[in-house]
Amino acid sequence: MGIVQRVCPSARAGILYIYAVSACVLLLVTVAYMSYGKSPSAHILRAALRASYATRINSIFESAAKLHTKPWAKLATLADDFGSRLSGSQGLDDAIDWTAREMRADGLDSVELINVTVPVWRRGSRSASYASLISPRHADLAVMALGGSVPTPGPGEALEAEAVVVSSYGELRTMGAIGSADGKIVVLDAAWVSYDENYEYRSRAAVEAARVGAVAVLVRSLTPHSIYSVHTGGMHYEPGVVQIPAGAITTEDADMLRRMQDRGHVLSLALALNCSVGPPAPSANVVAELTGRTHPEQVVLLGAHIDAWDVGTGAMDDGGGVVAVWHALSLLHSLGLRPARTIRVVLFTNEENGLAGGQAYAEHYASELGNHVLAIESDSGVFDPRGFYAAGGSSETAAALSAVATLLSHPPTHVDARAMTSALETGADISPLLAAGVPTLELQADGGVYFDYHHTRADTADKIDPVELNRCIGVLAAMAYVVADMPETLPR
Amino acid sequence: MGIVQRVCPSARAGILYIYAVSACVLLLVTVAYMSYGKSPSAHILRAALRASYATRINSIFESAAKLHTKPWAKLATLADDFGSRLSGSQGLDDAIDWTAREMRADGLDSVELINVTVPVWRRGSRSASYASLISPRHADLAVMALGGSVPTPGPGEALEAEAVVVSSYGELRTMGAIGSADGKIVVLDAAWVSYDENYEYRSRAAVEAARVGAVAVLVRSLTPHSIYSVHTGGMHYEPGVVQIPAGAITTEDADMLRRMQDRGHVLSLALALNCSVGPPAPSANVVAELTGRTHPEQVVLLGAHIDAWDVGTGAMDDGGGVVAVWHALSLLHSLGLRPARTIRVVLFTNEENGLAGGQAYAEHYASELGNHVLAIESDSGVFDPRGFYAAGGSSETAAALSAVATLLSHPPTHVDARAMTSALETGADISPLLAAGVPTLELQADGGVYFDYHHTRADTADKIDPVELNRCIGVLAAMAYVVADMPETLPR
Repeated sequence: MGIVQRVCPSARAGILYIYAVSACVLLLVTVAYMSYGKSPSAHILRAALRASYATRINSIFESAAKLHTKPWAKLATLADDFGSRLSGSQGLDDAIDWTAREMRADGLDSVELINVTVPVWRRGSRSASYASLISPRHADLAVMALGGSVPTPGPGEALEAEAVVVSSYGELRTMGAIGSADGKIVVLDAAWVSYDENYEYRSRAAVEAARVGAVAVLVRSLTPHSIYSVHTGGMHYEPGVVQIPAGAITTEDADMLRRMQDRGHVLSLALALNCSVGPPAPSANVVAELTGRTHPEQVVLLGAHIDAWDVGTGAMDDGGGVVAVWHALSLLHSLGLRPARTIRVVLFTNEENGLAGGQAYAEHYASELGNHVLAIESDSGVFDPRGFYAAGGSSETAAALSAVATLLSHPPTHVDARAMTSALETGADISPLLAAGVPTLELQADGGVYFDYHHTRADTADKIDPVELNRCIGVLAAMAYVVADMPETLPR
Repeated sequence: MGIVQRVCPSARAGILYIYAVSACVLLLVTVAYMSYGKSPSAHILRAALRASYATRINSIFESAAKLHTKPWAKLATLADDFGSRLSGSQGLDDAIDWTAREMRADGLDSVELINVTVPVWRRGSRSASYASLISPRHADLAVMALGGSVPTPGPGEALEAEAVVVSSYGELRTMGAIGSADGKIVVLDAAWVSYDENYEYRSRAAVEAARVGAVAVLVRSLTPHSIYSVHTGGMHYEPGVVQIPAGAITTEDADMLRRMQDRGHVLSLALALNCSVGPPAPSANVVAELTGRTHPEQVVLLGAHIDAWDVGTGAMDDGGGVVAVWHALSLLHSLGLRPARTIRVVLFTNEENGLAGGQAYAEHYASELGNHVLAIESDSGVFDPRGFYAAGGSSETAAALSAVATLLSHPPTHVDARAMTSALETGADISPLLAAGVPTLELQADGGVYFDYHHTRADTADKIDPVELNRCIGVLAAMAYVVADMPETLPR
């Protein structure tokens, strides 16, 4: 805060000057808006936006860089002091209260908690959950239940069964056709391609394995790089299919079991998962605003999720997003950059194992979604920002957002986030908004190491770089500000 | 084996031809040897060695590359099927027997087990060893006892104490001077510089912490890169200093505890370590030879250690070294490259927590150490080979070894291991030989990721690349062969 206040007086003087200058190009902008997406006018629009906003954008990037370690320190507090933030946990409740308090202290126009009821699933005690190779030799295998898994039957005792390693659902079904997965623990050892490609090998694992008669399934952790790391994550059951326990093991152990099977060993495993489901619990989305000057009813949403898997401290997924969207709003506020439309930060609850926060938001604001101009989420890490994934809207929406994105470059602070990539999906929390017709963006950051830490105990504050976090703050603030302030509303 | 046998006939014909050709340059070599280390004759020596050995060296590198995945498959079997190989474990006993059997099957001249008595330390059960943050919030902290640690007092119950985080022994002593580490658990959070620099923060941790009145010590894992990885390793106590329990925690948790302390939190930890010492157990060094043609009493030693820490499967440390020196010898044997002097492979036991294997070797062969021409160890990973660290011997030794090293380049198989770096220390197993005056080399491989996996559960076969392993085999075979075959004995 201290640093931001120091830069305020001169920044505000500059901004007043820029307001005056930009008034002179309003006509040009308006003309350009009259034919979105056609090449010559797209060119005019970009030029007009640059003339109107370039100086303000530069001021945002410079001020974001001058936040130094302040946002990162908030992230470290969120991660360290509240720990994991699984739905229904004390850590999540405390983190929601603390974050709302901190945002109020930043002087934002409104900071509210919107109640949401969330499902409760608990991993259970550390000592009662384990996996072991018991034949041909004994070895502990690190294991984590997948989120939502049923426990192994019989508290205090392990399920023991022969194991079979398969590389794909195709191979599993072939085995199933001859009954050779029956009564076994299936080890699903699908080679890493990408998170999107491999996702179904976690989410549908229990269903596919149960269908061929397996008694449990262990999934190769979804990661390109492991230091004996176990990655948890969500999974689901299907009506009419037996619910079997599902866990994740390391890529190292999946490799080893496959090699041992290839060498002709018959593998036996013991598995104990001690997870349980509790009654639904109260939780909340945190909603904070910078109210629009002239169109307060029109909303540009900046979202992230405040819940996290229970195994790490949720610094990357998605504490970084929480801190980034919060500080994007606080930065605009501290710079006196109040846009024409409202910018609303939403910290969603229960993204990881239910999406109750995202759904509750869409229901709570159902009558106002027509006025949701754009929903932006940061849930892919706050590493060096590269641009956005755009989903929803029309070609005019895409053209306008691409024109705004051309402003997201600021060499003095090494920001270059001009990439605008078309996508079919968006951040999970804002996917109900996309379904309701709201154009969406998801922040695209350098993803080089994201899946090394994703859903592991290593999702901790040290993984986030303060300088890159500040760049994300600047990019989110700039994108939200321009879209919330442009003379014409972003077309759908 | 199949692949090696296929290349034998033509390789042997080539070698006979080369023997004939190389006889013609013997005089030149002999002249060059008469004034080792002086620049003009060093140049002559290099030229002479190249004339004598270049074709044989190329044949070694080409044949090593054609081993394809055979050595790696042996490594995977060693790592997977026997698991961890801590001194006194069934895994180590079985691995020693299996490796000796495999080496005999390779047809080496002699494969013997030399009995060694080893110390026994056991980590204890997984569920009875844990660390927790208990205030200001509860969190599990992954922990591993350091090898040799005493257990926490009172079986089945945890030691609970206030914790204090320090960054250096200097800071610890300053605290000690005012009694403020008294009765506490010390968290030793020394920033990573290098393994050599940080080593004392593991090995002496219990001694330094006990001296200022601490009841236990937790060491930041020695690694430059962590995915919530715990690195165990050896430590020691000192006479007259209270023996306190010592464990390693992740860099992530060390960082978190330090940040929480910096934010003013008073930290309380619970620690339970369930380790124990057993009576010394029988073990063995494995010794295999390719007996020298003309000077069988002169020995070039190729060493690695077959024991491993109990937490991973010891594929990198030092299963890779074991497989590399074994296959270097088997490769020379299969190529019919019997040198003038004996090449002796020694797979040492108990490197990690006692060095009984290295000491027993030096004692067993005490009367023959004058005839140990050179001792080479591979215990720094079998990643892409770059050269050797040389310790011991005179400037003439260094000049001769550097001349041999110039041969260790073979562009078709991407081998370039010509770097010869002077060092003060050598591989632990052969350090008693260095102390007895034997010149030593340690294989220098690409160390980029070595300490990411070192002494962790992630020390598994997947970390070793079959192609790089074969390059190490070629480099070790070539260096040992030339030194064992040169007309004049390597000078000391």
